[in-house]
Amino acid sequence: MFESAEIGHKIDKATYKAAVPALRAALLEAQVNLQENKKIPVVVLISGQDGAGKGETINVLYEWMDPRFISTLAFSMPSDEERERPPMWRYWRSLPPKGRVGIFAGSWYSDPIRQRILEEVSLKELDAQADQINRFEAMLVNEGALVLKFWFHLTKEGQVKRLKALEKDPRTAWRVTQWNWDRLKTYDKLQDVAGHLLRLTNTPWAPWVVVEGTDDRYRSLTVGQILLQALQKKLASTDKQESPVAPMVRVDTDGRTVLSELDLSLRLADKTYEDELSRWQGRLAELLRDPRFKGRSLLCAFEGADAAGKGGAIRRIGAALDARQYQVIPVAAPTEEERAQPYLWRFWRHIPRQGQVTIFDRTWYGRVLVERVEGFCAENDWLRAYTEINDFEHELAGSGVIVVKFWLQISQQEQLKRFKAREQIAFKRFKITQEDWRNREKWDAYQQAICDMVERTSTGNAPWTLVEANDKNYARVKILRTLCERVEAELAGRTPKGLQPLSKKARKVAKSEFPTAEDNGKGTEKSKPAGKSKAKGKGQ
Amino acid sequence: MFESAEIGHKIDKATYKAAVPALRAALLEAQVNLQENKKIPVVVLISGQDGAGKGETINVLYEWMDPRFISTLAFSMPSDEERERPPMWRYWRSLPPKGRVGIFAGSWYSDPIRQRILEEVSLKELDAQADQINRFEAMLVNEGALVLKFWFHLTKEGQVKRLKALEKDPRTAWRVTQWNWDRLKTYDKLQDVAGHLLRLTNTPWAPWVVVEGTDDRYRSLTVGQILLQALQKKLASTDKQESPVAPMVRVDTDGRTVLSELDLSLRLADKTYEDELSRWQGRLAELLRDPRFKGRSLLCAFEGADAAGKGGAIRRIGAALDARQYQVIPVAAPTEEERAQPYLWRFWRHIPRQGQVTIFDRTWYGRVLVERVEGFCAENDWLRAYTEINDFEHELAGSGVIVVKFWLQISQQEQLKRFKAREQIAFKRFKITQEDWRNREKWDAYQQAICDMVERTSTGNAPWTLVEANDKNYARVKILRTLCERVEAELAGRTPKGLQPLSKKARKVAKSEFPTAEDNGKGTEKSKPAGKSKAKGKGQ
Repeated sequence: MFESAEIGHKIDKATYKAAVPALRAALLEAQVNLQENKKIPVVVLISGQDGAGKGETINVLYEWMDPRFISTLAFSMPSDEERERPPMWRYWRSLPPKGRVGIFAGSWYSDPIRQRILEEVSLKELDAQADQINRFEAMLVNEGALVLKFWFHLTKEGQVKRLKALEKDPRTAWRVTQWNWDRLKTYDKLQDVAGHLLRLTNTPWAPWVVVEGTDDRYRSLTVGQILLQALQKKLASTDKQESPVAPMVRVDTDGRTVLSELDLSLRLADKTYEDELSRWQGRLAELLRDPRFKGRSLLCAFEGADAAGKGGAIRRIGAALDARQYQVIPVAAPTEEERAQPYLWRFWRHIPRQGQVTIFDRTWYGRVLVERVEGFCAENDWLRAYTEINDFEHELAGSGVIVVKFWLQISQQEQLKRFKAREQIAFKRFKITQEDWRNREKWDAYQQAICDMVERTSTGNAPWTLVEANDKNYARVKILRTLCERVEAELAGRTPKGLQPLSKKARKVAKSEFPTAEDNGKGTEKSKPAGKSKAKGKGQ
Repeated sequence: MFESAEIGHKIDKATYKAAVPALRAALLEAQVNLQENKKIPVVVLISGQDGAGKGETINVLYEWMDPRFISTLAFSMPSDEERERPPMWRYWRSLPPKGRVGIFAGSWYSDPIRQRILEEVSLKELDAQADQINRFEAMLVNEGALVLKFWFHLTKEGQVKRLKALEKDPRTAWRVTQWNWDRLKTYDKLQDVAGHLLRLTNTPWAPWVVVEGTDDRYRSLTVGQILLQALQKKLASTDKQESPVAPMVRVDTDGRTVLSELDLSLRLADKTYEDELSRWQGRLAELLRDPRFKGRSLLCAFEGADAAGKGGAIRRIGAALDARQYQVIPVAAPTEEERAQPYLWRFWRHIPRQGQVTIFDRTWYGRVLVERVEGFCAENDWLRAYTEINDFEHELAGSGVIVVKFWLQISQQEQLKRFKAREQIAFKRFKITQEDWRNREKWDAYQQAICDMVERTSTGNAPWTLVEANDKNYARVKILRTLCERVEAELAGRTPKGLQPLSKKARKVAKSEFPTAEDNGKGTEKSKPAGKSKAKGKGQ
């Protein structure tokens, strides 16, 4: 990969001076277009050997372009706010919004390379990291970003020569320290690791550009021209550049789905409910005070049809926690700043710190549910979202975030009943909107979308729990219990093994409450036991 | 202050149960109105003695209200990102946006109280902190916020009793540690300090509510009802509640202002310019690598008429810095998230960490310049902005941020010339908009606004430097030189003493370049020396 950057590329002074004014004017013009276009975030990675001119090149770009619309992000030691979140969090928070250029001095490549040089990770682990990087960059490109990755190369001899030259000039001598000379010792190792990683991450959507770093003029002009051409091409192109996606297939030819298999008649009597609820609330409170939770965090995702009882369930979880330990994030339309970023950005910004809990009321699954069904995004967007979401949750889980996802399923009749009931109660009135009534009309399309979602995103690290929610008592207890079981297993170091229905035994306990008519799902509209309304008023 | 919270307030169970449903419904309704209204951020401080029910009260509020639109912020140890910025930064970043409730468990009162108990600050310093707090809260209220400050009180005996009761109950015993008992020893000291601070900060716009903490039901009901009434009142009121402001006065009855006194004929020949520029750029680079700068940060604010040369000057500063050390923030229209916050929030979010530089291209002075002149904000808003801005800069300076502010002054003729020139040059074309031409028409109004701004906001900690900018050479060198002198003085521990014109000697040097015709300001439109255009192409 590095051969063509070892042939002694050089630009003479006259050529350089002749080329720069036009290049600079064109870069400025492209930058203005970029800003007016407001669709493309530009991500430029500057990496490579020490002394190969990384800093100088960034400064040249600043000189040539309008520095007000560039941000340079240097990533050295992560701050404690960064260390307490997944490694990619610091890069997500630094992504340039659409219309701006973000220069990454140090990037998601730095840690993998460093770790491998120090032999903190195996080659296999490095490969896994490369895969994760490729997927991340594919996401950026699919979201419209221009991703340019520069690697500045110097031969070992070139590096020695350059360091000596820097040392000799009093204006630059301060930049050379013993540290730089020591780094020379790892030259071969770095070349080796970088060569491997660059090859693996040299994707069609975000290829590496290896630039010879010896000659300042050559390096500056090359980077400037590549950046210009890439900008111009991207701005001129009207076709979306996207990873291919396969169409959705159906496997429910017998009419059975994970949703149709749910027994919505499951109920809990009020007395049992109250006992179970406080039991699991107590348990959850204990678990989240467990010293082992200090290094973890918890992320609960709630999805469900309107009036499925998400709010009530979240409230029951909250009752077990200290308000200072958790945040509830209601997901509504994205803000202007969120729209200028990749889809998942607005969820990344709420990832909890260690020891903290975030509960999402509606989630990143909006893309494959409401956005898909209502046509708010292109088919390609939601089709690739499954993978992006899995990657997202994989990164969370990989860094110790416990991800627990609930789908609250109710029947259409139950939903209608709740809508009507809500309209009667003063302080719940606001919850019913025209949109809620409209969504009901697309019931079947939503059911299909939910099944596809579960099929594609119920993973080992972050399984879906489908909750039979026609009975609020049953649903709340199942949710709290599942939460406790997941947190407990995670703290004990066991990872979940996939979709986790309530255990057979637990199911039996629930069933035994109403052993007869409701077993076959016909009991959902039955009037509730007399004690119900009282308990409800109290519990809410 | 605490007497009425020591009389043994109590609510019996029946009264409580009867009152809660209506209170809860009304709170939820008020919360919905708050959200729809989208004008009022609600700031609730929960403070007081240990064991007086702070946590419990927050949890009750969560139970009664919709937790999706409340955030609770707990402030314990600041993170390193917070420690490297002014103390108020962490509170600014946590302010609730309009329409939401932010509960502060721990607040801007915590540190002053703690520091005074530990005798880290004198009583005088505490008083100064109280003053700063009052001004901050006044700003919040003037910006439309509802600020509610609760102090939960317990007598010493009550606290002992409560801790014992908590210890006895197995469900709450975990909450009592030796730490709690130790804290009892500082009870008197805390009462003393809090009593003093509460009195000083018991302002008409944000008074304290001292609530007896002994009886859970009394405490919950009291806080709930006070919150409800405050919300309802605020939502019902249409008149703006604002601090009174005095009208602007003029002292330039002789027609002389700080602007008219500027000698816009000041120039530097290209040769001198190039020498001086690289001299000061080198000096700046040195200063910002000085170990003493590691604990400081630099904030440059640029204001000036259109085409006054802000961009070019910023670029010359940038050329002296490593791109990884600074950010340029171009200030444009606020985003949706910024509009939901107090005016200064969008500047607070860009305050640099230690060792970093932020350059604002246009600034928080927009309120007293463009917003004032164009009528984009009410007169009261810009009249009180001077004080808010001074407080802002005072907080920055007080925590080691070096604040350097430049006004770039050009003559009307020079501006016209530059507008016309810009239209000719391809890559600068974009910079001229209809708005620029329109702004020219309000020249006089702007000049007045600038004079008022300098008059009111050129402070000891953050003086304005007025830059004679008809000649770009002169302006750039003056800016770089001023910057160096300020940073040097700050690193040496000297603080600036007010408005800092270029020293007499420096002025003389500049003058001597063009000793004859241009001395009386008539030379500004003269054609430039022959070498000029060449140098310009190179230097830019």
